[in-house]
Amino acid sequence: MIQIDFEKMGGLVPAIIQDYQTNEVLMVAFIDEKALKLTLETGKTWLFSRSRNKHWMKGEQSGNTQEVQEVYTDCDADALVIKVKQNGGAACHTGNRSCFYVRWEDGAWVEHSEPLFDPDEVYKK
Amino acid sequence: MIQIDFEKMGGLVPAIIQDYQTNEVLMVAFIDEKALKLTLETGKTWLFSRSRNKHWMKGEQSGNTQEVQEVYTDCDADALVIKVKQNGGAACHTGNRSCFYVRWEDGAWVEHSEPLFDPDEVYKK
Repeated sequence: MIQIDFEKMGGLVPAIIQDYQTNEVLMVAFIDEKALKLTLETGKTWLFSRSRNKHWMKGEQSGNTQEVQEVYTDCDADALVIKVKQNGGAACHTGNRSCFYVRWEDGAWVEHSEPLFDPDEVYKK
Repeated sequence: MIQIDFEKMGGLVPAIIQDYQTNEVLMVAFIDEKALKLTLETGKTWLFSRSRNKHWMKGEQSGNTQEVQEVYTDCDADALVIKVKQNGGAACHTGNRSCFYVRWEDGAWVEHSEPLFDPDEVYKK
């Protein structure tokens, strides 16, 4: 029986969050055993924040939650691909659809930021 | 000027290798500063193997190299997406097109292995 190998990286595995229709990579985050269990049980993406040392549901503050459609692991069972329907249009805290809006061009990283919302409005206290 | 944050994870960042046409995730690996430099300079995917503690060019043994088309980083500059043209059809050492051929179905991980080559032939000594 295949089981996810959380030991290799101190309890975490990288999780690629992908749009279930276009396959666009929306974000990459880390998941531990509890976050994976919550993700599979609730059908929403749950993650583990290394900087805040806590579990969180993607979109719990912004409202931009993710409806899980399919979950895959790889040949070594040490990474996850989670295909989701992104609520609210944007996955990134900057307001961009995807976190990967910075491209290598002619020897430098170039931002292509096209925010769909104003982070100051969405994350205001 | 944006620079990749290799410090957060002890010199490494996760790199998602994606088919440049279909956006299928082919594999996830780790890249350090030297492997990124080699990838950008040579146009082939270079990686860092944690288990073997060495740099390697994807496909150096199997011949299934990857032609880099585009490279992205994310809002925190701590992860990479590398869009590639996969030579030889398969990215996974099992012979599968993608490493992510194991899906969560009704409470268990189910393999959907459809190898395009025989690993025993390709990796024979």
